[in-house]
Amino acid sequence: MSTTALAMVVDPEGSGTQPHWRLGDPDAPQLQVTSPGLARGDGVFETVALRNGVLQSEQRHLDRFTASAARLDLPTPAHDVWREACRAVVAELDDPADYVVKYAMLRGDEQSSAVGWVHAAPAPDYDRERAEGIGVVVLGRGFHSTIPAHSAWLLHGAKTMSYAVNMAALREAKRRGADDAIFVSADGLLLEGPTSSVVVLVGDTLVTPHPTYGVIEGTTQADVFAFAEEMGLETEVRDVGINEVTCAPAVWLMSSVRLAVPVRSIKNISRHVDFELTAEMNRRLMARTS
Amino acid sequence: MSTTALAMVVDPEGSGTQPHWRLGDPDAPQLQVTSPGLARGDGVFETVALRNGVLQSEQRHLDRFTASAARLDLPTPAHDVWREACRAVVAELDDPADYVVKYAMLRGDEQSSAVGWVHAAPAPDYDRERAEGIGVVVLGRGFHSTIPAHSAWLLHGAKTMSYAVNMAALREAKRRGADDAIFVSADGLLLEGPTSSVVVLVGDTLVTPHPTYGVIEGTTQADVFAFAEEMGLETEVRDVGINEVTCAPAVWLMSSVRLAVPVRSIKNISRHVDFELTAEMNRRLMARTS
Repeated sequence: MSTTALAMVVDPEGSGTQPHWRLGDPDAPQLQVTSPGLARGDGVFETVALRNGVLQSEQRHLDRFTASAARLDLPTPAHDVWREACRAVVAELDDPADYVVKYAMLRGDEQSSAVGWVHAAPAPDYDRERAEGIGVVVLGRGFHSTIPAHSAWLLHGAKTMSYAVNMAALREAKRRGADDAIFVSADGLLLEGPTSSVVVLVGDTLVTPHPTYGVIEGTTQADVFAFAEEMGLETEVRDVGINEVTCAPAVWLMSSVRLAVPVRSIKNISRHVDFELTAEMNRRLMARTS
Repeated sequence: MSTTALAMVVDPEGSGTQPHWRLGDPDAPQLQVTSPGLARGDGVFETVALRNGVLQSEQRHLDRFTASAARLDLPTPAHDVWREACRAVVAELDDPADYVVKYAMLRGDEQSSAVGWVHAAPAPDYDRERAEGIGVVVLGRGFHSTIPAHSAWLLHGAKTMSYAVNMAALREAKRRGADDAIFVSADGLLLEGPTSSVVVLVGDTLVTPHPTYGVIEGTTQADVFAFAEEMGLETEVRDVGINEVTCAPAVWLMSSVRLAVPVRSIKNISRHVDFELTAEMNRRLMARTS
């Protein structure tokens, strides 16, 4: 038993008769530098929260993984295989109370169409961000919101391993004295954070941008929208002008491990935070049983 | 001696007193799946041709590697260290006549700021592409040409390991019955190929787009421009409308290993190819002694 665990998914499609995955040493090298997808960020990934032994929103993550793989013309991941590999990794952990489970699939070569893995490590502590909120900057993502719908090769909406721009945006945010960033399209529409969905409260409606603008569909956002009615809120997926974000009574970045984090400043200008609603969202997210 | 060789560059900045690199087994796993840069394509790379024992355009590649690293806030690679590691890899090869040498640096963690490697393998045979030309399609890159100059976090012009879009563009080209692609900006300016620079003959001038439009500076294009005068040609770096490409008497994709490949059709429409000029360019490129 340990605090990290790894499974290599050698047959991500589950098509062969050999074992589809095997446990590996999380501290040992597993990948060759020549793995075809590696030097090109040519793969897809998911980051899932493991809380009290439950993989949060497991099905939504698997569905998104499959959709991302399809956009990259990667093999279709067999959900049973990946579920099994995740279970095996979780079974290796000391006490699966609060972990991050990452799984990924990189393009392979002639011998094997793809190589995958599942890795678990303790989750960072985001209590403070959830309780106090974060400051964000607004960064242009460079493209007009109409581009993604007719340019499939730009891979908008796919959760790929080509995240260098997302990482650069986070560094730019820190340089500007903020904690995180919100991307905006060239025509002024809200997109997403580098590692999160953005949700805005407008009246009593939770609003998030439509995926056709090049936004990755949020698993945590979807779960919050699913229990919005119980919280007395409506939900809407539509285009959101960046000015609407600035003026909204509440804004959150939502992601699998950090959950709902309220935005307490945009471009160093303080803004209203609904601490009560945030706490309720996170209570409900933490209580998920699937 | 063998046909592939590998060195791991453990101290890419050459700052420590321990050896900065070590030879490794090119067929053994060298990277952990948890390497911080790996799952994010958060690194930079170069692909260099090794011909008759000479690393072609070695200094231009090292300079571009350094520039890419700076754009990603990665450590500054010590040229001596990387040159030495390249030499060591080349010395392992049976007969260094025609190889591809790839080197890369991935973001590291607290313990080591980056991990790098140099890998050599036999070069594919591109004689046919050089002699007969290739068909290309034109694909939108999604951004207006004015965006890169004021959005450093979009990493335009850096040769990053986040190349999933470039790989998707090549697959899209093949789907459309072509061999390769040419990217165009949202405002109709020529950019580059997914793995190449584009050079256009206009009158007796070789023209290529200006790097400020988000184009990676081409090492092979720069070498061709350097000996253009000897071929009786002028050179110019400026904005090039995509229509200018269609009408030009000659168009090439230029890259380190494939060298100058003439474009013989755009969007399945045949076009003129200057076979003689192409052959002369490639003769000169193959005869480089540094």
